[in-house]
Amino acid sequence: MFETGHEKHQERIHSMKAPWITYRPELKVLDCTIRDGGLMNDHQFSNDFVKAVYETCVDAGVDYMEIGYRNSKEMFPKKQFGAFRHSDEEDIRRITGDHDPEATGLKLAIMADAGKSDWAEDILPASESVVSMVRVACYVEQIPETVEMLCDAHEKGYETSCNIMAISTVQEVEIDQALEVLVQTPVGTICVVDSFGALYREQVDMLIRKYMDAVNETGKEVGIHAHNNQQLAFANTIEALILGANRVDATVDGLGRGAGNCPLELLLGFLRNPKFKIRPVYKLLEDHFVGLREELTWGPLVPYNITGQHNQHPRSAMALLDGDDRSRYLAFYDQVMRDI
Amino acid sequence: MFETGHEKHQERIHSMKAPWITYRPELKVLDCTIRDGGLMNDHQFSNDFVKAVYETCVDAGVDYMEIGYRNSKEMFPKKQFGAFRHSDEEDIRRITGDHDPEATGLKLAIMADAGKSDWAEDILPASESVVSMVRVACYVEQIPETVEMLCDAHEKGYETSCNIMAISTVQEVEIDQALEVLVQTPVGTICVVDSFGALYREQVDMLIRKYMDAVNETGKEVGIHAHNNQQLAFANTIEALILGANRVDATVDGLGRGAGNCPLELLLGFLRNPKFKIRPVYKLLEDHFVGLREELTWGPLVPYNITGQHNQHPRSAMALLDGDDRSRYLAFYDQVMRDI
Repeated sequence: MFETGHEKHQERIHSMKAPWITYRPELKVLDCTIRDGGLMNDHQFSNDFVKAVYETCVDAGVDYMEIGYRNSKEMFPKKQFGAFRHSDEEDIRRITGDHDPEATGLKLAIMADAGKSDWAEDILPASESVVSMVRVACYVEQIPETVEMLCDAHEKGYETSCNIMAISTVQEVEIDQALEVLVQTPVGTICVVDSFGALYREQVDMLIRKYMDAVNETGKEVGIHAHNNQQLAFANTIEALILGANRVDATVDGLGRGAGNCPLELLLGFLRNPKFKIRPVYKLLEDHFVGLREELTWGPLVPYNITGQHNQHPRSAMALLDGDDRSRYLAFYDQVMRDI
Repeated sequence: MFETGHEKHQERIHSMKAPWITYRPELKVLDCTIRDGGLMNDHQFSNDFVKAVYETCVDAGVDYMEIGYRNSKEMFPKKQFGAFRHSDEEDIRRITGDHDPEATGLKLAIMADAGKSDWAEDILPASESVVSMVRVACYVEQIPETVEMLCDAHEKGYETSCNIMAISTVQEVEIDQALEVLVQTPVGTICVVDSFGALYREQVDMLIRKYMDAVNETGKEVGIHAHNNQQLAFANTIEALILGANRVDATVDGLGRGAGNCPLELLLGFLRNPKFKIRPVYKLLEDHFVGLREELTWGPLVPYNITGQHNQHPRSAMALLDGDDRSRYLAFYDQVMRDI
């Protein structure tokens, strides 16, 4: 009988009595605090803040830091958006200097959105950049452009990853087709992305199994990018890891759009690989995030619970929380139920 | 081959393609907002607040409301603690009137702690009370008194439940022994209680399987009471339900000691039984919990993350958060690491 990638992984795990005591050296953590968090403030972070996150990633043993988007300057004008919406090479170097992945143990990543990036021109050859990985974010209907973007980045010398967003709204037959196309590209990692924070454990299982089986024997890895609308980002991340995902996204204090992401400090507390150090993250939280919470509001607040429960984009919840009547939960619930 | 309770349940579940679409009618929800939340304010709730929670439980289709402790008035003096640390019959009736479980669909519960309750005298015969269930909370070393308490409550006519607390600190051989003793009593439900919010998914699995197998073919049920120190209360509750636990604890807004509990509004959003109504809970959140959050601080804050990660009682985190230096995460982390 044909044994799938998922099944082989499960057999390894089940041979252990208490698998949570040990660790998988091949499991790699990506911090996307600045990239995803910038969706809360148009990437208007100070250099000091970005530098503090960068240094913490190095000190904490994080494997990748996604420092920002490389988005189109026409769609996202420089006068409105901060530096890490575009992550120009000189802006990155202002933070990292001539970043050395070997010496620091950290690789840098940028994210390019299908439909929102001038990727052919804006992404330099890897040999001229401190960036090691290009992550392509897309909706399922953008798979053809995504394939071109992944090939372009690969040919330019980058590691690549593909994040099909809002996967909780995509038909299973379309996911299957997208995976079939993607595994034929040079993409290194394919991420399960729960943009709406709508997925429960059993649904995460179904998707991770599907992705694991798709990449079986290709050498590609499966990743997880969870959102925290229902306080499930960390738990769904654990679930994906248990099922064999080896690439995992997290952000400091869970900073990210709306309800935010899987908190890095919870993830590192769970992981058993001694290369990860949690103490620098607590220092960063104390020095920089207590203050940030006075400026920005994110996390699994009631309006995000409601949009997550109904598999909706969080934009209506973000609008409510930007206004003066942020605690009008009942009217908001009624509005969501009327509109779905 | 002998088929255990856990295995039979798993077979039923695995025969379904998308089990999360349907529901188990036998799954019952217990709200312990006032009982567990009172640990944050010595049960100094207004009558209006308790009444609002009671009415919401009725409107939301919740099965049980644990309205408070029945603790010793010597150990917990009336002048220091609010009414629901003792839950005298007249105090309960002040909220519920002559509560009718049939008409309202809601049963009332109280919790009695081993070692902290004058249970023989203070618990009336069920025929003279509006309370339907007595839940006995104990540490594993208090199993002998717990057995007496369960038998006493059963003989007085109550449904019974047993919560062995801080289970993440108990040796497996002791858990096995405790379960072997408990299944021989008239106890109706045995709850897995993660007092420190320390358990990860695989550990919840191990415990729920153990409890399910212990109660197999006894007619007894397994419950779950999770704490949210690592943002896992809801997820671990889902996990227990998937594995067959039919009794589940939650609180409005997750109110409870320290990091709090599994939020009722998330749980009801997950459950598919149409008897549960979530709208009244959003109304209660808006009317009463926005204000309460200005008085009390609870939830999965960083200091609770730290105690949870190290399987520690949250009292040191509560002390930190009661003081003026509540954001001294690094010093707190160092202290916890020095002390363990």
